[in-house]
Amino acid sequence: MRETWVPMPEVTDFPIQNLPYGVFSPPGRPPRVGVAIGDHVLDLSEVDTPARAEFAAATLNPFLARGPEVWAAVRDRLVDLLTGEPLTPYLHAQAEVELHLPIEVADYVDFYSSEHHATNGGRILRPGTEPLSANWKHLPVGYHGRAGTVVVSGTPVVRPSGQTRTRGEPPAYGPSQRLDIEAEVGFVVGVPSAQGEPVSADDFEAHVFGVVLVNDWSARDIQAWESQPLGPFLAKSFATSVSPWVVPLAALEHARVDPPAQDPPPLAYLRTDQPWGLDISIEIEWNGTVVSRPPYRQMYWTAPQQLAHLTVNGASLRTGDLYASGTVSGPERDQVGSLLELTWNGREPITLGNGETRGFLEDGDTVTIRATAPGKDGTTIGFGDVAGVIQPAP
Amino acid sequence: MRETWVPMPEVTDFPIQNLPYGVFSPPGRPPRVGVAIGDHVLDLSEVDTPARAEFAAATLNPFLARGPEVWAAVRDRLVDLLTGEPLTPYLHAQAEVELHLPIEVADYVDFYSSEHHATNGGRILRPGTEPLSANWKHLPVGYHGRAGTVVVSGTPVVRPSGQTRTRGEPPAYGPSQRLDIEAEVGFVVGVPSAQGEPVSADDFEAHVFGVVLVNDWSARDIQAWESQPLGPFLAKSFATSVSPWVVPLAALEHARVDPPAQDPPPLAYLRTDQPWGLDISIEIEWNGTVVSRPPYRQMYWTAPQQLAHLTVNGASLRTGDLYASGTVSGPERDQVGSLLELTWNGREPITLGNGETRGFLEDGDTVTIRATAPGKDGTTIGFGDVAGVIQPAP
Repeated sequence: MRETWVPMPEVTDFPIQNLPYGVFSPPGRPPRVGVAIGDHVLDLSEVDTPARAEFAAATLNPFLARGPEVWAAVRDRLVDLLTGEPLTPYLHAQAEVELHLPIEVADYVDFYSSEHHATNGGRILRPGTEPLSANWKHLPVGYHGRAGTVVVSGTPVVRPSGQTRTRGEPPAYGPSQRLDIEAEVGFVVGVPSAQGEPVSADDFEAHVFGVVLVNDWSARDIQAWESQPLGPFLAKSFATSVSPWVVPLAALEHARVDPPAQDPPPLAYLRTDQPWGLDISIEIEWNGTVVSRPPYRQMYWTAPQQLAHLTVNGASLRTGDLYASGTVSGPERDQVGSLLELTWNGREPITLGNGETRGFLEDGDTVTIRATAPGKDGTTIGFGDVAGVIQPAP
Repeated sequence: MRETWVPMPEVTDFPIQNLPYGVFSPPGRPPRVGVAIGDHVLDLSEVDTPARAEFAAATLNPFLARGPEVWAAVRDRLVDLLTGEPLTPYLHAQAEVELHLPIEVADYVDFYSSEHHATNGGRILRPGTEPLSANWKHLPVGYHGRAGTVVVSGTPVVRPSGQTRTRGEPPAYGPSQRLDIEAEVGFVVGVPSAQGEPVSADDFEAHVFGVVLVNDWSARDIQAWESQPLGPFLAKSFATSVSPWVVPLAALEHARVDPPAQDPPPLAYLRTDQPWGLDISIEIEWNGTVVSRPPYRQMYWTAPQQLAHLTVNGASLRTGDLYASGTVSGPERDQVGSLLELTWNGREPITLGNGETRGFLEDGDTVTIRATAPGKDGTTIGFGDVAGVIQPAP
């Protein structure tokens, strides 16, 4: 890889081997698409690429809709531009721009694909029963979430109010007392599909453009009362935060690993010769203390399998569809992706670095999720933070 | 009410007391907004109203976003135009135009608000247990569906394939064998709300523009296997059909009735002095035979209560959000809104007028849902049909 003319910090999520896309506003100017490089962002509406017109938009969707050939051609061109003549007038310090939600989310689906998370959840919430539902190892369990409340990192999260019930008492209304996070990896669809026509797992790269980090904020007390028989609804729909940068699958080729073996073997429509286990190492920071390091590579169901399942009934894909992995949890307590698991439903509070103890989130708390993965040329690439501060209920 | 210059049939869903909006294409021309009047549609992109620019769009969303004052002003103006000088050049026979999906659906939520349907469902699917879940009389149970697969009446529905399991056997892949309908009433949001700020039930008319009929096609065998623990997913996401016309709430003022008494009384956030029980009489036709007449007026939870619940956690509304009532079922077998109930899960097949017997839908079957309600001046208004034919799995 040639050297870039962009000044690069020692350590960065965004070496030239990454090149994730986002939407930003230079001071006083409208949103447009940029690519992250080191501490900077290059304004792609101002430089010559095969998608310049699409890069003038306020979302990535028009670019994502162009498909894999254009994605690859633009990526090649960006390497040329970033290693050629300096384009300094179009380079902005990330600290000086506003980052926006990178995609207009079409439909949002949330899976539940960590065996450790699903097992922990079953043990905590349904003690005395089999922790995994009978279907869990046969299909990637998932459900639709609210697309309209997906927000970009940095957006404050207002503590949700709602209806809860303490066993033996009548239902009550009030602010959630068990506000939680879910650290997840999200997949962004670029190329749509026709209604009535399933998409094969092998066609993953023909449809999915890239990856964001997701914090699927969850109100456990609301969830416990509302979820029978149709699943979670308001416990999840108040806010879902995503990282501002979409890392292309092309940047993750060197992070690919074999996913865990699947036993029993899944049905044919869930099999693929193109496994996409990914060695993404997540880190969860709570008020400045790293409390967990969930390993995405241990997820039982992979993104191509989730895509095949999502469409096996003929459901169409749209540009901007976002589907998330489900909470990423490893086998150890310091590898879990939710506070429910970390503090075992609040029963085993943890102590943060500043001496505070916590079961669930308190007003004013900040959670930051970040992640790294192996990149090309022995580099490490990152995803940018997905952070949010809890504001009190109104 | 003055006489309209539009030639009117004896019986019509669309007297001048109705005036529902849709999106249509005259032959060889692009989509635009129109209003249904008798057997005709008036091209609103061609006539002088306070929303003429919005009516040139291919969806109702820009008009819906304008809000209640503009909605009312346009409605008044349409009565003037339809009773004034003939605007014959802008009038098209409905039979000669193509009708499109009237709204760009933002988020789609499906409730479960008929006590009779929920009770029947519990009895059929979970025999031996309490048919209503413990939360059912305390909150309107709901979940998010797939917005991207909402289609307009007339769109064929491809039989979904997926994973099912017969008890005692391993899971299998194949076309659904228990394909069903759900007859529902849908509510279309016009005016958005801010994230973090609940919308009160009393503000229903400040946000919701109008009503469509909905057929929430459902694959019961897929649903039975996939729904634990996160609710229905692929059983519902392959297609949801809506009627092509959005009937304004303003046309339904004379259909308002007291909803059923609620016992126990709901929490304060679910109470309103503006009850919106609605005397909408639905009719389900299966291959030409009317098999059921579900009464919407018996729904336990009303649309303002559903709106308040949907946003109580601070979830924002967007223009184009669609939320459906849930299957409308009355207490009698010939008043149910699903085939699951009509044939008691296929165990009690029915005979159609042509002598065919049916448990669930077969390939080539057509289901048409229509409805009427009392309108102003003693009229009866309708919603237009929502129809679909089942095509075989690919």
